[in-house]
Amino acid sequence: MGGDYAPKNVIAGAVDALAETNCRFFLSLVGMEEKIDRELQGHPLLRSLKPNAYEIVNAREVIGFTDQATAAVKTKKDSSIAVGCALHKEGKADAFVSAGHTGAVLSASTLVLGRIAGISRPTIGALIPTAKSPSLLVDAGTNVDCKPRHLFEFAVMGSVYVEAMLGKKNPSIGLLSIGEEDNKGNDTTLEAFSLLKQSKLNFHGNIEGRDVLQGKVDVVVCDGFVGNILLKFGESVPSFFKAKFMTFAEKSIVNKLVALVAKGGMRSVMKELDYQEHGGVPLLGVNGVSIIGHGGSTPKAIKNMIFRAEEMVQQKVNSRISEAIMQYA
Amino acid sequence: MGGDYAPKNVIAGAVDALAETNCRFFLSLVGMEEKIDRELQGHPLLRSLKPNAYEIVNAREVIGFTDQATAAVKTKKDSSIAVGCALHKEGKADAFVSAGHTGAVLSASTLVLGRIAGISRPTIGALIPTAKSPSLLVDAGTNVDCKPRHLFEFAVMGSVYVEAMLGKKNPSIGLLSIGEEDNKGNDTTLEAFSLLKQSKLNFHGNIEGRDVLQGKVDVVVCDGFVGNILLKFGESVPSFFKAKFMTFAEKSIVNKLVALVAKGGMRSVMKELDYQEHGGVPLLGVNGVSIIGHGGSTPKAIKNMIFRAEEMVQQKVNSRISEAIMQYA
Repeated sequence: MGGDYAPKNVIAGAVDALAETNCRFFLSLVGMEEKIDRELQGHPLLRSLKPNAYEIVNAREVIGFTDQATAAVKTKKDSSIAVGCALHKEGKADAFVSAGHTGAVLSASTLVLGRIAGISRPTIGALIPTAKSPSLLVDAGTNVDCKPRHLFEFAVMGSVYVEAMLGKKNPSIGLLSIGEEDNKGNDTTLEAFSLLKQSKLNFHGNIEGRDVLQGKVDVVVCDGFVGNILLKFGESVPSFFKAKFMTFAEKSIVNKLVALVAKGGMRSVMKELDYQEHGGVPLLGVNGVSIIGHGGSTPKAIKNMIFRAEEMVQQKVNSRISEAIMQYA
Repeated sequence: MGGDYAPKNVIAGAVDALAETNCRFFLSLVGMEEKIDRELQGHPLLRSLKPNAYEIVNAREVIGFTDQATAAVKTKKDSSIAVGCALHKEGKADAFVSAGHTGAVLSASTLVLGRIAGISRPTIGALIPTAKSPSLLVDAGTNVDCKPRHLFEFAVMGSVYVEAMLGKKNPSIGLLSIGEEDNKGNDTTLEAFSLLKQSKLNFHGNIEGRDVLQGKVDVVVCDGFVGNILLKFGESVPSFFKAKFMTFAEKSIVNKLVALVAKGGMRSVMKELDYQEHGGVPLLGVNGVSIIGHGGSTPKAIKNMIFRAEEMVQQKVNSRISEAIMQYA
């Protein structure tokens, strides 16, 4: 039931994921049964699926975008988010995926699944495009006020995630700051710097705002306040350029022709900053696999979220986080 | 002597500024006399200037980019930065402009000129391009660890500056945060929110990272940690797109042709994010007019810095800041 186009896009993505993999996994579709069933019946690929590849788990409540996250999770026990998380907790599912209310998914996952021992703050990491391969920005907005230890934990979780999921050996970690020198930063990052420096992580040192899109490091560590602002700023760049490009095009006939020709190229380039394609962000540090999708998730994004969840299970990301953090307990 | 291309670009910009305004002001060129004189003599427009439109003030020392800011200001008493600030303090100049070591200009200005009563933290504001007219981002990197009161002062100074220099009546103020709702933010911004809400400022409320380039408000308030990271991130966007555009062009002959046609348009649009054109950033809150330029300042940037300094004097920005902050003392 999660997301702006639910259950339509969610079901479409789920069926696509099953169809594309010849039903490699089993999906529990959690939410209002009749709505889900109606969407399923309307999907052209439904007949091609094995009938035992999915089930509908009825959940009568929905957490809306105006609900207060933690309160809603506690009062709406029969919401698709609460029921879905419980399925995972009980071992009836190996992972939970939702494009619903971000705060509620976060709360439910943390409350129901619990935290990995040694992790004080679960975090969301977001893959961001760079001039090289994507980097993981962590924390992407979950924890706004952070202590040095929290930033350190984000680095450990980010390192494990990138190694496991992106196949990068010993990923490089950068601490987002205001200068490259060791002594540049605010009170929190300066202390986090020493923690990172002393660790066995592949710590590159401080990086600056300009290094993020260059792909200077594999994991960019910051608090959720900075992470949220940076991500949203980045997302807004394409529409800024679009507006400027329109102004450029309106200046002359020649410009208009240039703009017409360039349009496709521009779109292809700008698409790089479209995070929706990437298919959700992982919640790291909880005792389970929980993927949080954008409210506007397309069927493709939902499908990619499911694939990502499957891979996180197979790559044993959580036990690897658990082992990694134990070294620094 | 300041900047990567000193004294060449500095002198070129200074002469251009005088030539363009028919010597509307008097310039003291501070630094190594013989070097300055050599540059002056080589400038084609020198002969067109009134001979009493400028002077050379000899200063034998230079603060280099590797010097530690505050220490250098104190030990290198005969540096161009220290001597220039002193000229201003003694009333022999109405403003000080430098493209030299940012930290040293900041330190010298604060130490020598002192703070405006009621201002606890001088700040640097940076004009940033938006889909509408430019906004002022304040603090742009000076104060990394801020208390709510500091953010509030930045808002007051930013409001005065934008009204005085950009001619916007009662500029709107946005507090950079992680959500638009009043209760979104970190500990510091939440408290700053109440201070701003209670003030007579035209406080729009919280804004998000995505609102900055949209030009939602005239003044974007944040601490210098966030401001520095955001500005540097923004500056890096053009080269990111350039790299992606090259990749696009290499994909096919058609793409290469599209890229060739689009190049000019792209360049014109990307130029919007080039802060160097804007000509320096003002240091607000000190008892004087101090403009800090980019190390790579072009002659045009230097010229614009001089014009900006002149206008700040004429607009009486400092006495307006002083009056504005007194209301909240």
